Amino acid sequence: MSVTQAAAYAAPAPKAPLERTTVPRRPVGEHDVLIEVKYAGICHSDIHQARDGWGEGIFPMVPGHEIAGVVAEVGPGVTKYAVGDRVGVGCFVDSCRECEYCLAGQEQHCVQGATGTYNALDRNGEPTYGGYSTHLVVDENYAVRIPEGLALDVAAPLLCAGITLYSPLKHWGAGPGKKVAIVGLGGLGHMGVKIAHALGAEVTVLSQSLRKREDGLRLGADHYYATADEATFKELKGRFDLILSTVSAPLGLDRYLSLLRVGGALVNVGAPEEPVELNLFSVIAGNRTLAGSMIGGIAETQEMLDFCAEHGLGSEIEVISGDQINEAYERVLSSDVRYRFVIDTSTI
Amino acid sequence: MSVTQAAAYAAPAPKAPLERTTVPRRPVGEHDVLIEVKYAGICHSDIHQARDGWGEGIFPMVPGHEIAGVVAEVGPGVTKYAVGDRVGVGCFVDSCRECEYCLAGQEQHCVQGATGTYNALDRNGEPTYGGYSTHLVVDENYAVRIPEGLALDVAAPLLCAGITLYSPLKHWGAGPGKKVAIVGLGGLGHMGVKIAHALGAEVTVLSQSLRKREDGLRLGADHYYATADEATFKELKGRFDLILSTVSAPLGLDRYLSLLRVGGALVNVGAPEEPVELNLFSVIAGNRTLAGSMIGGIAETQEMLDFCAEHGLGSEIEVISGDQINEAYERVLSSDVRYRFVIDTSTI
Repeated sequence: MSVTQAAAYAAPAPKAPLERTTVPRRPVGEHDVLIEVKYAGICHSDIHQARDGWGEGIFPMVPGHEIAGVVAEVGPGVTKYAVGDRVGVGCFVDSCRECEYCLAGQEQHCVQGATGTYNALDRNGEPTYGGYSTHLVVDENYAVRIPEGLALDVAAPLLCAGITLYSPLKHWGAGPGKKVAIVGLGGLGHMGVKIAHALGAEVTVLSQSLRKREDGLRLGADHYYATADEATFKELKGRFDLILSTVSAPLGLDRYLSLLRVGGALVNVGAPEEPVELNLFSVIAGNRTLAGSMIGGIAETQEMLDFCAEHGLGSEIEVISGDQINEAYERVLSSDVRYRFVIDTSTI
Repeated sequence: MSVTQAAAYAAPAPKAPLERTTVPRRPVGEHDVLIEVKYAGICHSDIHQARDGWGEGIFPMVPGHEIAGVVAEVGPGVTKYAVGDRVGVGCFVDSCRECEYCLAGQEQHCVQGATGTYNALDRNGEPTYGGYSTHLVVDENYAVRIPEGLALDVAAPLLCAGITLYSPLKHWGAGPGKKVAIVGLGGLGHMGVKIAHALGAEVTVLSQSLRKREDGLRLGADHYYATADEATFKELKGRFDLILSTVSAPLGLDRYLSLLRVGGALVNVGAPEEPVELNLFSVIAGNRTLAGSMIGGIAETQEMLDFCAEHGLGSEIEVISGDQINEAYERVLSSDVRYRFVIDTSTI
């Protein structure tokens, strides 16, 4: 039981390009598994954090919370996984395990704060390092099983993008007979289209332009509208049971709320950092709801992976090597990816 | 079958004081009832409209949508009510009766627009006049029965203030084991306290000061906090399942959202006319919800009245005569009423 030195890509300082380095992985403890990381997705929030957009970054920072790999070693107390099992790790790697939310399977809302997969301090005060790396040690209770039939590369982004959309779609009742709109067809949005379609909902994409229309329809959308076209808001007034916004640009909430049916919900999983404006009559009239949703718990993440495997849903990806990460970041920022970059960690 | 000339108090023009006048009431039609109005509550929105705060007012305007009275005549096709029955009329007196929302008992959300009890044009293009009046003619389907055991004076405000609070309390699950906060202890808020308490919830009043604390506890609140005290927001962080805001002053939504438990909802039934600011991370973190609610349908209004009768809940009122309406408006605007003015229409 010794420290593993894992190869990784890290941002050495805020806004500095990511560089190849090594980071220590703790000895495999009683309930730990050592994961040989195979693929790690690039989430928009990786860029925010590596560039210290949210403040309080811990550097050097190894981003990556969309992790798919294979178990390489297990601690003596591990019961869920064996060497060779295909597993994933998402946005957090620990939580208090005692609070009502942890006990309810909502570890992401742990009252003590869930431990981030990277850019966080673990329960021993050691910095955590994410999935842009060859190896990772994690408590077995914070890993999920990647079902057979889901390739590891297309599965990796499900650990954040997949659960981020699956959880609110389930919670807010997406399914047969329901009209669901997905705002933004990017890394998050394209999974929203796939999952909402697989749940049986009638799916509409609301995107700035019709540029990705063909993709949207191929991925499962029934309708596709450009939000730059003012006619869209007239035509779709009062149409949707549920709108999921995946964009981080300010939306103009009142206009989107007007697209909801009576009792409908606009759920934000993306958000601008600055405050937004809202006329409260937009929710009072029609008993409408503006809500938010943040990833999902471990059990729900497993449920999502099982659902995706059953329906053959993976992310649409572009696989890159470690030395392409910085370029990929720029391309993410200019929306030049269909729809998720995934790092092949064998190239690190 | 002739036009009834009803005595009434009307605002002759925007911002003009209300004056005694007469208004025509249509002949009692096939499905109509003629109501001898006994009491009419003064709702804050009466003042908004009489003073043209929302624009597009129809003058002369007879306000009043919290109406309690006795049936004085029935049309030949009326089946629900007989002469002498005690009935109430709320915020609307008609709707299309064909759209999905009308058919679902959500007439207040009628896609063609429900016909307002006053300051509206009815299906024949005639202006509607409200409850500050001795008589009213209304289709029987838009009246509700006031159960025995509820005095007409304390029942009148239930037709707006009561249903405005009852509907979201029921919809968002107020009941045993749930912590509910009511923001603002006024005409709406005091009914929220009574109803939430009767539903079995643990009730907290959040008011600017502790001035009405004794009242709040007497009405059914378990706790009472001053929102002017910054410590309130620290102490109550993450406390509530449901917060109902009844105030029309801008709240500082992010602070109130932080008082919600994971998955909790802040529901607005009052609102400022100007847009408010919100950081969307306030709903994303903790999967929280910002919602709105607007009165209720006819069936739910009847359910509310039956509930209030069963639990002995009426509004706390100050009965006034017609010539005190203008003074009462000023007192409402300065929050100098505990908790609802009700006009004794025999004085008109």
